Amino acid sequence: MKNLVIIGGSDAGISAALRAREIDPEIRPTMIVADNFPNFSICGLPYYISHDVTHWKNLAHRTREDVEKEGINLLLEHTAQSINTQSKQVTITDKTGTLKSLNYDKLIIGTGAISMRPNIPGLNHPGVFFLRWIPDSIAIDEHIKKHSPKTAVIIGAGYIGMEMSEALTKRGLTVSIVEFADSVMPSFDADFGNRIRDMLIHNGILVYNKIAVESINTIDKRLVVKGTGNLELPADMVLVSVGSVPNTALGQSIGINTGTKGAFKVNLKMETNIPDVYAAGDCAETWNRILQKYTYLPLGTVAHKQGRIAGENATGGSREFSGSLGTQSVKVFDKVIARTGLNEKEARDAGFQPVSTDFETWDHKVYYPPAEKLYIKVTADRTTKRILGAQMLGAYKTEVSKRIDIFATAIYHGIMVNEFSNYDLSYTPPLSSPWDPVQMAVQMIEKELKT
Amino acid sequence: MKNLVIIGGSDAGISAALRAREIDPEIRPTMIVADNFPNFSICGLPYYISHDVTHWKNLAHRTREDVEKEGINLLLEHTAQSINTQSKQVTITDKTGTLKSLNYDKLIIGTGAISMRPNIPGLNHPGVFFLRWIPDSIAIDEHIKKHSPKTAVIIGAGYIGMEMSEALTKRGLTVSIVEFADSVMPSFDADFGNRIRDMLIHNGILVYNKIAVESINTIDKRLVVKGTGNLELPADMVLVSVGSVPNTALGQSIGINTGTKGAFKVNLKMETNIPDVYAAGDCAETWNRILQKYTYLPLGTVAHKQGRIAGENATGGSREFSGSLGTQSVKVFDKVIARTGLNEKEARDAGFQPVSTDFETWDHKVYYPPAEKLYIKVTADRTTKRILGAQMLGAYKTEVSKRIDIFATAIYHGIMVNEFSNYDLSYTPPLSSPWDPVQMAVQMIEKELKT
Repeated sequence: MKNLVIIGGSDAGISAALRAREIDPEIRPTMIVADNFPNFSICGLPYYISHDVTHWKNLAHRTREDVEKEGINLLLEHTAQSINTQSKQVTITDKTGTLKSLNYDKLIIGTGAISMRPNIPGLNHPGVFFLRWIPDSIAIDEHIKKHSPKTAVIIGAGYIGMEMSEALTKRGLTVSIVEFADSVMPSFDADFGNRIRDMLIHNGILVYNKIAVESINTIDKRLVVKGTGNLELPADMVLVSVGSVPNTALGQSIGINTGTKGAFKVNLKMETNIPDVYAAGDCAETWNRILQKYTYLPLGTVAHKQGRIAGENATGGSREFSGSLGTQSVKVFDKVIARTGLNEKEARDAGFQPVSTDFETWDHKVYYPPAEKLYIKVTADRTTKRILGAQMLGAYKTEVSKRIDIFATAIYHGIMVNEFSNYDLSYTPPLSSPWDPVQMAVQMIEKELKT
Repeated sequence: MKNLVIIGGSDAGISAALRAREIDPEIRPTMIVADNFPNFSICGLPYYISHDVTHWKNLAHRTREDVEKEGINLLLEHTAQSINTQSKQVTITDKTGTLKSLNYDKLIIGTGAISMRPNIPGLNHPGVFFLRWIPDSIAIDEHIKKHSPKTAVIIGAGYIGMEMSEALTKRGLTVSIVEFADSVMPSFDADFGNRIRDMLIHNGILVYNKIAVESINTIDKRLVVKGTGNLELPADMVLVSVGSVPNTALGQSIGINTGTKGAFKVNLKMETNIPDVYAAGDCAETWNRILQKYTYLPLGTVAHKQGRIAGENATGGSREFSGSLGTQSVKVFDKVIARTGLNEKEARDAGFQPVSTDFETWDHKVYYPPAEKLYIKVTADRTTKRILGAQMLGAYKTEVSKRIDIFATAIYHGIMVNEFSNYDLSYTPPLSSPWDPVQMAVQMIEKELKT
């Protein structure tokens, strides 16, 4: 194998290239990057807007030079225009529009996703933003600097909505969040989402649930977000963060099949239906380990895993993606919320007989102040006694995110409720208790199920 | 089963009683407690001395009333004097010396351990302390209040030595630690121990390694610790923390077999060789899950697990202890050190072909300040590619202890090096990176082993 070409220079693409180099140091992958920002942490954009990050250049996981030093041939500001699967060539243009052609033996497509644009009027008004790429965050930052907006409306209460509510509050804006679902963070159960909502309100955020946004208008040079129930929210800026859609046009043009939410269909080796063409990251479907079916889950962690597998397999390997559990964590103000596996509703929808415990405890021994409140909702299947998922809310810096990872690791291995307390977890009074809170929560279910 | 009698009211005993009540709500276990402190957190004693804990009463996991409310019959300040296995009776005395007799159907012995007293002269001098029980910590606190000591020598650089070096520094003392081994924290590899030693020195602790203490003398009303290499350390107080020995006299008197370090031999059901008599906690041996043999590992986490199993089995269950990995964590000054499984030396001694990576990284994305340095030493077996253990050092509040628990959970399931990156661990820039540091560390080994 001589020519490995990768389209896309974000998480999936870089992971693929690095892994290919590990497997076969003779290979020099060529990476086509549409913009000038290879290997940037798009998850860090809210922290650039909050000014926690001092310069957007710091958001690079690796600099251009770092990437090139790894033996990767970077083509920045080049766009893949077409692929010829017969001659195995990719046609690209540079920023002057000059056409070039690249031969490939193996091709990895990591074209990512784009922001979802809901079907409402007004998205193009000045002051209405999306947040996905570096230029988006620069535009928002400049808008705040130039116009000193006082109020912002965020449409969509997912992860970006959470992080941006904190970021904009830090920049001095009064923030409203408008969400279609019953509560915030729809990937959590509604009862848990209510805890998150209360935390947001405690931090000065105005939260509007069960609202379908109908339009964004301008009145007297101000924006006004209108929604169901006669909601009218004036704002000096609006952020639309309602999800993302896979960027698949190029791949579809060569006949790559698409599935869930239009993402590329791939097998566990990250192969598409086109010979020698792989897809990975936000443009591709994600195998869900518990549901045992394909889903769409555009996350950086998944993109890294899928990219690494595509890179290995494009270099002669035969590794399989073991699936995602939808593990996610997010810091919002002084709290961290995290989840893995299935929540109770997802479990019920998938045909399980879920039993859940909403457990409240301290993150560590309360005699060593300050201990902080920790909420854990564990969901198990009443029939098989298998742990299906966990949701957690606790204070920043109290190990919430790595506690969810204990569940993620356990669920990966298919742990049963009555085996979970076998884990030899660490304890010291400033950090835990002799049974870690995660074990205490599962013991509640053990009692309930009498196992 | 009618009468469940438990000797000992610390971690193992309480866990046994609580679990027995869960399994069979008809049972009212009788618990014989020698002192007046049932269910106290002896792991918290250093924090009472440091004054992080405001009153020693706060160290109770549960108050006496809490314990009794759980349906447990508490006999405080009662001592078990003898056991008649024929008539199935325990003879006890109260604090006046009055004899009583208790019938048992099942008996659980959780008599714990006592501080090891090394074979050197001078242990009885005023100002020489051990730390195991509440009265020890009160004595140390009163000594400091009364005599305002300026300097302390701690003999033994294990967990208690670490915690007490911080506690006594907080109380204004200059602290020296004297340790027989090559470095501090002998349950870590020496190279990792050196990092810990450097951290102690950075915090003003004087560290003396490879010293065998020969005597504690008094000269001009001051204590002087003398050791090999002509070491002479004057001190206003001395803490001897060189480990613990199982408290087994009562059990031995009825013929319970003892094994490693004199601890009670038990099977995985926590049964001793005497019918209807169980042992759990610091008085009993501990099955090591990786070594597949019995060891002695007096830890609160293990005591809780063993007690819970003894309580379940004494009530008709048949649960087996799944073994310990020796998981431990400790906060020292502004750092946390943690370990699980086998270190490199232990792995080699056990006949494995260890391969280790000493990996240094940041606890989370460095663009979100402040990120903190994290050191991870992972050890795997070159032959089987199985992960055997991990050691970690990082800043307090950067999820070090629950990161070691990801390893503890993974090693429980026998994870292989090339499967570890499959785990769907959480990521958000303020708390991790798209590959968590634990996965990056294992990927170093993957490269090394070319798996």
